[in-house]
Amino acid sequence: MNLDDKILDALRDGGEIYTSGEDLCKLSGISRTAIWKRIEKMREEGYGITASPHLGYRLTAIPDALIPCEIKWKLKTKIIGREIISYKKVDSTNTVAYELAEKGLREGAVIFTESQVKGKGRLGRMWYSPSGCNIYMSCILRPKMTPNEIPKITLIAAVAVAKAIRDFTGLDAMIKWPNDILINGKKVCGILTEMKAEQDRVDFIVLGIGVNVNSKSRDLPAGGSSLLDESRKICMCGDLSRVELAKKLLESLEEHYNILKDKGSPAIIDEWKALSATLGSRVRVVLPGRSFEADAHNIDPDGALVVRLDSGILEKVLSGDVLMVR
Amino acid sequence: MNLDDKILDALRDGGEIYTSGEDLCKLSGISRTAIWKRIEKMREEGYGITASPHLGYRLTAIPDALIPCEIKWKLKTKIIGREIISYKKVDSTNTVAYELAEKGLREGAVIFTESQVKGKGRLGRMWYSPSGCNIYMSCILRPKMTPNEIPKITLIAAVAVAKAIRDFTGLDAMIKWPNDILINGKKVCGILTEMKAEQDRVDFIVLGIGVNVNSKSRDLPAGGSSLLDESRKICMCGDLSRVELAKKLLESLEEHYNILKDKGSPAIIDEWKALSATLGSRVRVVLPGRSFEADAHNIDPDGALVVRLDSGILEKVLSGDVLMVR
Repeated sequence: MNLDDKILDALRDGGEIYTSGEDLCKLSGISRTAIWKRIEKMREEGYGITASPHLGYRLTAIPDALIPCEIKWKLKTKIIGREIISYKKVDSTNTVAYELAEKGLREGAVIFTESQVKGKGRLGRMWYSPSGCNIYMSCILRPKMTPNEIPKITLIAAVAVAKAIRDFTGLDAMIKWPNDILINGKKVCGILTEMKAEQDRVDFIVLGIGVNVNSKSRDLPAGGSSLLDESRKICMCGDLSRVELAKKLLESLEEHYNILKDKGSPAIIDEWKALSATLGSRVRVVLPGRSFEADAHNIDPDGALVVRLDSGILEKVLSGDVLMVR
Repeated sequence: MNLDDKILDALRDGGEIYTSGEDLCKLSGISRTAIWKRIEKMREEGYGITASPHLGYRLTAIPDALIPCEIKWKLKTKIIGREIISYKKVDSTNTVAYELAEKGLREGAVIFTESQVKGKGRLGRMWYSPSGCNIYMSCILRPKMTPNEIPKITLIAAVAVAKAIRDFTGLDAMIKWPNDILINGKKVCGILTEMKAEQDRVDFIVLGIGVNVNSKSRDLPAGGSSLLDESRKICMCGDLSRVELAKKLLESLEEHYNILKDKGSPAIIDEWKALSATLGSRVRVVLPGRSFEADAHNIDPDGALVVRLDSGILEKVLSGDVLMVR
């Protein structure tokens, strides 16, 4: 735990009671002036901290900012999110995480940012990333896997994210194969899995997750919505806490990643199927150079979508786009 | 073609006849002083160039250096090797090529080096890379592929490299699955295929090839040999030309890469089988956590090795080590 975390913890524990500068000096081992400087910096990050010359400091407001000391506070994970690096603005959290993973950043480290200049979607597409209202995060994983197993990571990530969103909002989040989360048929979240690998060994995986939390649907690309806008169809609520959702995402990711490691992907397939918006639907499969309609029939433990052609033949879809046909 | 290439081409065309400084100025469009400076630089690279005050310049020796103007000279490829970047020393050509590919370096670009500080082998191992005697190269490929197709690249590369070495040395180069080239049962070449990929789309592949050309077997790790040492078992020959072999490697790679793109991997499987040192052998398969003996039975078009267990069951081997059992 770093010094800022120690100071914040003390203020949190203090509640409405002031904590004296002297006590903060003792627990942090730094001078009163150094404490003051750190308090000033925390205020810049959005913390409300009241200072009284005789009484000390008191916490009056906590920012909903995607910063380590907030996300790590009471986070119930052992690996994922134990190291968090936060930015105000980056090109793309996947790009940053990829570069850091190449330099050896450990499994479970997570990059968060308030906004992305070149947010990445699947197949080289953009991910719309306005500032301060959504979650953009990338997690470094280093599983012992071959490259052809990577769809399993997207599979468990989709289940983990859909369940975290359900738990957090109470809304029926569904999975659209392979990597979108829908609510009421609208896209609220995308998952982008990238890797560095040898022919038969994954070096690392960067699991990127973008969630439209509080952004306005009218500002999002067609077909998109946000958790806030979908929540407001049920009740009038204020902005959702990104920090609380981020914690749930990390905890759910760790839980499902552990299931994958301990029991393999078959242990998660049933949950995936139960959450699927794709299975049972009529779909249009768009591959490079060809496209066809079929019925989405099943998902196999490797993460491939199995569709039934009108001829009755089953075909595995490993890549490409799958559009739901009305 | 750059200026150095133009000047060298003129000197090559001149043969034993001097080419006047004036002619070189005309064809290159630079001053006599600038020509002189470039000639000096070429001498540093190992070219023998005789200068006569009245007659001009004459080429007397060409270095066997892995530099663009030598490798590109009469190179018969359209894509692979049309861009060549050469180094004296790098950590690893795969690392350099990977970084350049991330910055957008085009398909077919090839990195060569005279020595590697941290030459990379498969599964995180080292590749012994002494200076000035061998070939260390990495080629950037950008095929439209899914990540699980990457073994096909190793497959065609192994065939391409084995055939280039056979053509160049006359020796019976064989393929040991998945990525080694053997002569007389000794390893003379390794292939390391790395990629950056999304779940369902390869971004780029870095195909690394290390060939022991003129190094001494006694300096190589156990089980290794060089083309020169294996050649000397048949005839007394001097050092082999790395530049000529490099050209053959690039040409053979392009030929087989085109076959893969046009006709798919089944078109190369038969050649692979004919060159295989593994098929028909008793092998020990070493996987993470288990190891077993079996008969190497077949290779499938995806690049997997199919082994027959003693129970008669066929099993696909996608990763791990396959040792030949005596």
